[in-house]
Amino acid sequence: MENSSPLTPLAVALGERAYFIHIGPAQSAAAVDAAASLLNGKRAAFIVTSPVLAAAHPALFSAFRAAGATVHTTSVDGEHAKRIGELERLWEALAAARMDRHGVVFAVGGGVIGDLAGFAAASYLRGVDFIQVPTTLLAMVDSAVGGKTGINLSAGKNLAGAFYQPRAVYADTALLATLPPREFAAGMAEVIKYGLLGDRALFDQLALAGRLSWDHPALPDIIRRCCASKAAIVSEDERETAPEGGRALLNLGHTFAHAIENVAGYGEYLHGEAVSVGLILATRLSAALGLLDASALPAVEHLLGKNNLPVALRKPLPVDALMDAMRRDKKVRQGALRFVLLRALGESITQFVDDDALVRRLWLEAGAGN
Amino acid sequence: MENSSPLTPLAVALGERAYFIHIGPAQSAAAVDAAASLLNGKRAAFIVTSPVLAAAHPALFSAFRAAGATVHTTSVDGEHAKRIGELERLWEALAAARMDRHGVVFAVGGGVIGDLAGFAAASYLRGVDFIQVPTTLLAMVDSAVGGKTGINLSAGKNLAGAFYQPRAVYADTALLATLPPREFAAGMAEVIKYGLLGDRALFDQLALAGRLSWDHPALPDIIRRCCASKAAIVSEDERETAPEGGRALLNLGHTFAHAIENVAGYGEYLHGEAVSVGLILATRLSAALGLLDASALPAVEHLLGKNNLPVALRKPLPVDALMDAMRRDKKVRQGALRFVLLRALGESITQFVDDDALVRRLWLEAGAGN
Repeated sequence: MENSSPLTPLAVALGERAYFIHIGPAQSAAAVDAAASLLNGKRAAFIVTSPVLAAAHPALFSAFRAAGATVHTTSVDGEHAKRIGELERLWEALAAARMDRHGVVFAVGGGVIGDLAGFAAASYLRGVDFIQVPTTLLAMVDSAVGGKTGINLSAGKNLAGAFYQPRAVYADTALLATLPPREFAAGMAEVIKYGLLGDRALFDQLALAGRLSWDHPALPDIIRRCCASKAAIVSEDERETAPEGGRALLNLGHTFAHAIENVAGYGEYLHGEAVSVGLILATRLSAALGLLDASALPAVEHLLGKNNLPVALRKPLPVDALMDAMRRDKKVRQGALRFVLLRALGESITQFVDDDALVRRLWLEAGAGN
Repeated sequence: MENSSPLTPLAVALGERAYFIHIGPAQSAAAVDAAASLLNGKRAAFIVTSPVLAAAHPALFSAFRAAGATVHTTSVDGEHAKRIGELERLWEALAAARMDRHGVVFAVGGGVIGDLAGFAAASYLRGVDFIQVPTTLLAMVDSAVGGKTGINLSAGKNLAGAFYQPRAVYADTALLATLPPREFAAGMAEVIKYGLLGDRALFDQLALAGRLSWDHPALPDIIRRCCASKAAIVSEDERETAPEGGRALLNLGHTFAHAIENVAGYGEYLHGEAVSVGLILATRLSAALGLLDASALPAVEHLLGKNNLPVALRKPLPVDALMDAMRRDKKVRQGALRFVLLRALGESITQFVDDDALVRRLWLEAGAGN
């Protein structure tokens, strides 16, 4: 575990096909090789990325171009690229590049590029092959695994899209060298989440490892463990139809996090930062309900804090607005909110909670105001 | 066969699920019942139709509304409704109606409405259930069966979409009473195509039946045979990946038809009218190549003519443009064009043909000009 030699690719068995996740410090070169090999076989390779990434990794995109691939850059960076006008622009660019149904779309970017390019690949000519090259820690452990793709509508986020699995994922940890530290930390919130929800050994490994950085020798193995956790959960519940547990467990901390993002305004907290506060709240709620031994709390707080993640709200947000936002999050049944809760570090369940006073109190303790 | 009592629903086994095609003169009432039953179960029902159909069948849409369904009308009729702006309008309307993932989209219309609403259903919340209520003969025997959905881009037709199977199809032959006779005839071209490509008994039944109309007692059975033919072919080759035969056989006459539509300009010939001329040309090409006994030709011409379908070009189109259009139709290998050809009435194969002079001569005999 403590070296950076190539890891065995992780096999993901989903739906009608299996694919591999390749993780390590030279995997973007492997993605270029994959594109070159497709092009030699007379299959088109079409690369989708964003302006910031095109500027950050010029050698990588030059290599894709030298192999004969078309490189398409979105017109904006960030969440705004997940809109219908950008999807149309991408579909028309695929047609202009004369992509036929044997062509392959590569998403080189974070979750936004993966979601947009993945939906374009799922729908262009009713589906062409798709390869993910995640460039953020968050995308490597979360959005690149599981097959959710899509765009936002005026009415809400991720309302249009497809469940569409990639043919391969190349996660190059060396690309994380240019990731802003705040985004790296935000990715760590999801890493820590996997330890909490189902992998006690990962939690312990993280607790022992000190603060992680892009070149930590254990990082590829840690990413692999997260992908394995997500793949195991997703392959049991690909379309999120399990009545309890299943894919919903991946939402540990997220009912709180969505409320924070919603009330603070999108962009004020990075998603992972809101998740960090959400993990603290979910852990405290589990202890307050008697599910989890309260002695587990300090280890969770310590691990998040050590990774430069917030363990409380930065500024007070109104508690009524936070409660309302949770109720709008679709996880309500007969007045009770559904949460993912911990029975131990590394063991989670879904449960309905109708004690609003308790949840309010926890918000106030985490820095909300009246 | 010679009565209008309800037929046994046709079971279609495709992909991960089976569904039923219900055919007969009262099936739109059954679709309303299905919507009412969903709504009683607290599942939303969202009906998509076009302005012309909303005006032609007011009682049907009143019944859907009375059951509690939302009725959405496209802003335009015809092929122009298969565009991205209309898809966005539909997605936003689904969100405005607060459709959750248990909701069901009904497409009440011809191929355009089925393709647009089917793609919206395939992609809204990454896929909600979908029911087809085809209102044209063409949609009943062709587009409502097989799972192809999609929209047009500036770069071409049907470039974005999904393979997405409906949960059920309700084909109400009584709705065909208001279909313009020219469109009914165009649908008959596809009906006759099924007889030619794989169902000799259907061809003979059509030859004996005289000209069919919407209230002909044999029509439900004939539609059912066509659906059974298409379903059998599609279930063997759902995503059109078979190297020969398979779903490609459904293109009998279509390499010629697409060239006619392309050169004459879309709208000049209805699709089925162009297919009719294409069926004549495919039959003659089969005979000229010695695959088919030439004595079969008059029966094909007679059957198409009897159903008010053209057996030659109405006005001369330039033969060079027709040949070029065929070459652009993606069915070329090493200079040879791929055609679906007949070995007998009711038996078809795919074959590459490199005798351009022969194909030119057949175009000229069918009314093309130099």
